[in-house]
Amino acid sequence: GLDRIVNSDPVAITFFIGYMAMFASAVFFFVERSSVDGKWKTSLLVSGLITGIAAVHYYYMRDFYLETGSSPTAFRYVDWTLTVPLMCVEFYLLTKPFGAKGSTLTKLIVASLVMLVTGYIGETSGIDNNVFWGVLSTVGYLYIVYEVFAGDVAKLAKSSDSPALGRAMFLLKIFITLGWSIYPIGYMVLPGNLLSGLFEVSSIDLFYNLADAINKIGFGLVIYSVAIAETHKNK
Amino acid sequence: GLDRIVNSDPVAITFFIGYMAMFASAVFFFVERSSVDGKWKTSLLVSGLITGIAAVHYYYMRDFYLETGSSPTAFRYVDWTLTVPLMCVEFYLLTKPFGAKGSTLTKLIVASLVMLVTGYIGETSGIDNNVFWGVLSTVGYLYIVYEVFAGDVAKLAKSSDSPALGRAMFLLKIFITLGWSIYPIGYMVLPGNLLSGLFEVSSIDLFYNLADAINKIGFGLVIYSVAIAETHKNK
Ligand SMILES: CC1=C(/C=C/C(C)=C/C=C/C(C)=C/C=O)C(C)(C)CCC1
Ligand SMILES: CC1=C(/C=C/C(C)=C/C=C/C(C)=C/C=O)C(C)(C)CCC1
Repeated sequence: GLDRIVNSDPVAITFFIGYMAMFASAVFFFVERSSVDGKWKTSLLVSGLITGIAAVHYYYMRDFYLETGSSPTAFRYVDWTLTVPLMCVEFYLLTKPFGAKGSTLTKLIVASLVMLVTGYIGETSGIDNNVFWGVLSTVGYLYIVYEVFAGDVAKLAKSSDSPALGRAMFLLKIFITLGWSIYPIGYMVLPGNLLSGLFEVSSIDLFYNLADAINKIGFGLVIYSVAIAETHKNK
Repeated sequence: GLDRIVNSDPVAITFFIGYMAMFASAVFFFVERSSVDGKWKTSLLVSGLITGIAAVHYYYMRDFYLETGSSPTAFRYVDWTLTVPLMCVEFYLLTKPFGAKGSTLTKLIVASLVMLVTGYIGETSGIDNNVFWGVLSTVGYLYIVYEVFAGDVAKLAKSSDSPALGRAMFLLKIFITLGWSIYPIGYMVLPGNLLSGLFEVSSIDLFYNLADAINKIGFGLVIYSVAIAETHKNK
């Protein structure tokens, strides 16, 4: 597998970078947890878990890719099955001080599991079916977008005029619409899909690795900076 | 062994998810232990030990399954021999503030060891004997159910009218009857048993992995949320 690295295979290189970035971020979030105030500690712990879990799976994905040269689809979805619900928990922790309910968290987790199960079937079921399953998966994704823009989460924001909640909601919307949308765009390089003429199939992992860096590490860092700001304000 | 992952073998996938979920939960319980009040710290520690022990055994079970394609029965029972008594300790810690006695804990542990030893003999003794040993094992299980619904533990609940004990008892009953019953249902896919026509033998590990997630992680999270609620109430 080392020849892929020697030949500067971009997918192999992003798996290497991704692995180390996830690992380093996990260490960062775990250690900095002690520098933030009470309620933010759990948020930083969850960020540490998300990136730590991803580090383990990037380790497997990197090796799998080096050995086989093909996309480590099963490992990817194993990772997402754990990290996407944890992202929903992160959203919940962010809005809980403003009255977010456990039932909203349950809805988001169920929608994300529907999105992932149908997405996995789509990626493994071949050219005749992947558009159909991709569309189904997108319905799950759009439901999450709906909850944030017009459903339970949005109602929460309307009934409060806290500037802190305003900032939290703005972040949530940006990540859900821009950050998360990189995944379905990546999916569309699969044969038979919209972008399949423009990119090689193997570039699906470039999209997914980029998106993971933005959503797992980037979102964690944004939460971290809010947490640090709030901690200093209360001193 | 990697071909099982490539071919989306569901048992292999749940071993991967199970391993990572147990590991992440153990980290979560150990770290969050510092955020709860005195008497809850021990409960969170025990939850961390249960999921941490399970993470190690899932690591072995996953590799064993990837290599051989057969059920890692011995590892499973090694895990249960440690984690089921610890679950009994968890129940004891939950009811101790209301007067639970050490002798009740001893009874529960003895019953669970009877259940596990006979269950192990059943799983390894082949089609002619597994129904017999499964029934014996179920007697041990039903004794535990009896203690909670009508025996020592139930008497405790009757002699107190604390709403906190009421909630703890409710949780205990749900997990003992619904959560734990998934294990004997899984056992019944073995040849010669009730469900052996409906499921493949290999699905026994799907049942066990699901049940472990519910009883080890799910129960731990429920205790955690009670602990957090009680900690905030006392502030
Ligand atoms: C819509 C859609 C998809 C969406 C995937 C998403 C949105 C994944 C998010 C992952 C995150 C946020 C991980 C963070 O740790 C799939 C499954 C590619 C299949 C095609 C349609
Ligand atoms: C009744 C019965 C069984 C029960 C197993 C149980 C109830 C296991 C519980 C494990 C737990 C709770 C682990 C938590 O860490 C066996 C042995 C499958 C054999 C068939 C009959």
